[in-house]
Amino acid sequence: MKDLSEMYIPTYDDVLEAHERIKPYIHRTPVLTSSYLNELTGAELFFKCENFQKAGAFKVRGASNAVFGLSDEKAQIGVATHSSGNHALSLSYAAGRRGIPVTVVMPRTAPQAKKDAVRGYGGTIVECEPSTSSREAVFAEVVARSGADFVHPYNDPRVIAGQATCSLEFNEQVEGLDAMVAPIGGGGMISGTCLTLSNIAPQIKVYAAEPLNADDAARSFRAGHIIADDAPDTIADGLKVPLKDLTWHFVKTHVTDVLTATEEEIVAAMRLTWQRMKIVMEPSCAPPLATILKNKELFRGKRVGVIITGGNVDLDKLPWMQR
Amino acid sequence: MKDLSEMYIPTYDDVLEAHERIKPYIHRTPVLTSSYLNELTGAELFFKCENFQKAGAFKVRGASNAVFGLSDEKAQIGVATHSSGNHALSLSYAAGRRGIPVTVVMPRTAPQAKKDAVRGYGGTIVECEPSTSSREAVFAEVVARSGADFVHPYNDPRVIAGQATCSLEFNEQVEGLDAMVAPIGGGGMISGTCLTLSNIAPQIKVYAAEPLNADDAARSFRAGHIIADDAPDTIADGLKVPLKDLTWHFVKTHVTDVLTATEEEIVAAMRLTWQRMKIVMEPSCAPPLATILKNKELFRGKRVGVIITGGNVDLDKLPWMQR
Repeated sequence: MKDLSEMYIPTYDDVLEAHERIKPYIHRTPVLTSSYLNELTGAELFFKCENFQKAGAFKVRGASNAVFGLSDEKAQIGVATHSSGNHALSLSYAAGRRGIPVTVVMPRTAPQAKKDAVRGYGGTIVECEPSTSSREAVFAEVVARSGADFVHPYNDPRVIAGQATCSLEFNEQVEGLDAMVAPIGGGGMISGTCLTLSNIAPQIKVYAAEPLNADDAARSFRAGHIIADDAPDTIADGLKVPLKDLTWHFVKTHVTDVLTATEEEIVAAMRLTWQRMKIVMEPSCAPPLATILKNKELFRGKRVGVIITGGNVDLDKLPWMQR
Repeated sequence: MKDLSEMYIPTYDDVLEAHERIKPYIHRTPVLTSSYLNELTGAELFFKCENFQKAGAFKVRGASNAVFGLSDEKAQIGVATHSSGNHALSLSYAAGRRGIPVTVVMPRTAPQAKKDAVRGYGGTIVECEPSTSSREAVFAEVVARSGADFVHPYNDPRVIAGQATCSLEFNEQVEGLDAMVAPIGGGGMISGTCLTLSNIAPQIKVYAAEPLNADDAARSFRAGHIIADDAPDTIADGLKVPLKDLTWHFVKTHVTDVLTATEEEIVAAMRLTWQRMKIVMEPSCAPPLATILKNKELFRGKRVGVIITGGNVDLDKLPWMQR
């Protein structure tokens, strides 16, 4: 990585470098298929199972790239982020593997299980109130005090280059894909996918899938500029955050379309995947299958890669139980 | 296969032949690992995920071997079995792939989801009352009427040779295993495991794991003869059936030990696997991990293969929800 400023746009060389760097700390996750889902959709689907990834989600790719790319001097001071989700776990895991300090600012209302997991990996939690203003104030204080390197959950070239290693592997594992579909929240995974595929397989179309209840990416895509929602309400809690300048660059340049699914369609696709593929995945992973099911004509007869992004779910609160 | 009588003991050649025969109809299932579970147990664990297998369980290996080993004349008449579980689904799947008739005798009280799945694969269901006498009477009538080939769920050399292909793959996928642990009900999977490993890797110890509430295999193993329980009550519903002569032959000859786990230990191990490995597996798959956790000294520092046997579970009735 040549430059760590936010506006540096990562290149394919950064992706290859990231892959070499993080290989010892991540799984090369398997690709699963389901005849049942193929018949149901009329497409040939391949599922890259990042729910089996270290720390339970693809986010560990970007976090590891950031952590292991630091100079020894910088690493010693440590890293910090704000996140109540998989990025918090992933950064804690990566920092733990390197043996450097990591501080995560989390809302005091974050699930206990997530807090326990961060601490389990050796992370320090600083709590804030569940509001943007409190989070920003507390986080600024943490960084000012510690001098820690801020690893943004997605709007960071190191993180995007790390996430891009997923489609690099995927393209090696499955030949002749016509399309890839991944969920979009802040856009880190989609940006990484665009970065890799535009360089090595530009014929593969990239589709982003998101909840209709948090369709800021779809509206941004149609409007031609970033639209950020204030507090979208969706079961796909990993997909509530808005695009930022770096991820917007990739979305507007390389994404074929942004598709949306309702809450009911998301829950149905999630349940169908558990039932038929026997994998535990988060609600945030379900929009790709949900949108493939409702846009069959788009994918019929095609070889379609689907990225299952994570598996960190509360087994006591499954959506089909809460109804 | 040289002889189809029940007392023919399948050989390693039968296993190799079975593997060639069934390869087009089964998945070579992946092997997953979990650093967390390694740390927790002090062993190096490898999980062979037969829950990702066609029809959702390893049973499809034996069923496919029986179905595709039939002569065209015999196949035309069809196959039949009695089962309310994974063998019913697997035999229906295999017969469907060959395009031959399959009749399954199921208790009328069997879960609707299982009945639907059998029909979905093209199977015909004949219902019986939920008692052994009714099942046997109805099944005898079905066979007498149709002349269908009876494929027993486990006490059949073709089925055992088929299940044996699982450890054949496993041994190729993971080098230097010290032990393999699999659940034991009727003993089909354990017999197949013994058959393969005693021929190609006799240094690998084979452990069978079962519910304490259905510990007939453990008691048989200690007594030196088959002990059958009448109606054991356990959440591991695939493990209620007793050993029979053919499976007993392998258990008494090659198994190192039969270990047991309580219902609470089984549910805890099941939940832990879902939570940490992000896979959906049946309660019947959990005794191996449960027994490894309670016999740590036996497995510490060892490379241990665990067979995750199936993933057909009712998502509306998870054991940690029912409490």
